[in-house]
Amino acid sequence: MYTEKVMDHFEHPRNMGEIENASGVGTVGNAKCGDIMRIYLDIDDSGIINDVKFKTFGCGAAVATSSMATELVKGKHINEAMKITNKAVMEALDGLPPVKVHCSLLAEEAIHAALWDYAQKN
Amino acid sequence: MYTEKVMDHFEHPRNMGEIENASGVGTVGNAKCGDIMRIYLDIDDSGIINDVKFKTFGCGAAVATSSMATELVKGKHINEAMKITNKAVMEALDGLPPVKVHCSLLAEEAIHAALWDYAQKN
Ligand code: FES
Repeated sequence: MYTEKVMDHFEHPRNMGEIENASGVGTVGNAKCGDIMRIYLDIDDSGIINDVKFKTFGCGAAVATSSMATELVKGKHINEAMKITNKAVMEALDGLPPVKVHCSLLAEEAIHAALWDYAQKN
Repeated sequence: MYTEKVMDHFEHPRNMGEIENASGVGTVGNAKCGDIMRIYLDIDDSGIINDVKFKTFGCGAAVATSSMATELVKGKHINEAMKITNKAVMEALDGLPPVKVHCSLLAEEAIHAALWDYAQKN
């Protein structure tokens, strides 16, 4: 049912945790399942995302997509990070079953919310 | 949204893992969200559950209810364990939001499936 990459990122999630005094924090909820995702961004003066962490109450698909999404935005400029879609994240994971596509939206939305939070503060 | 006990069992799940050569193994899937739960039971000759472990791809509510359910059946006789309901597990966790009640069914069903697997083998 799940690809090797999904299982790898589920069992060994990258960038799970919190960042104190983060430059931007985004929290989003999933109406379909009631799950929550929070992304923390640490952004330097040139707009580069130096560090990123996530926390979630969501399922394995939410953990795997967030793990992959944080890997994709780490080291990138905020303008590039803004363009990351859940489709790109799913492709990087070699796909997700259709019933789990809504879980992958949490990571995308939380990154956008954290970038928005950063933009408002700066 | 979640009680202290739910967060405690989500962040520090009890009995997560596998049992090799388990007396009974039960795997169930949740049609609503596509998640999977597996329970392993180690049962001695007198019918006492000496050890129990779980694995899941499910959300925080699935993790918390399985963690609590395994605590409730550990050390019990199989006849008592058979009577554990998701309602009892939710009460032990001081409740779950309505959108998450279906997640708590995974633990109950997986325990029943593992007991059934044991019964068929013995
Ligand atoms: S089912 Fe809620 S995040 Fe996957």
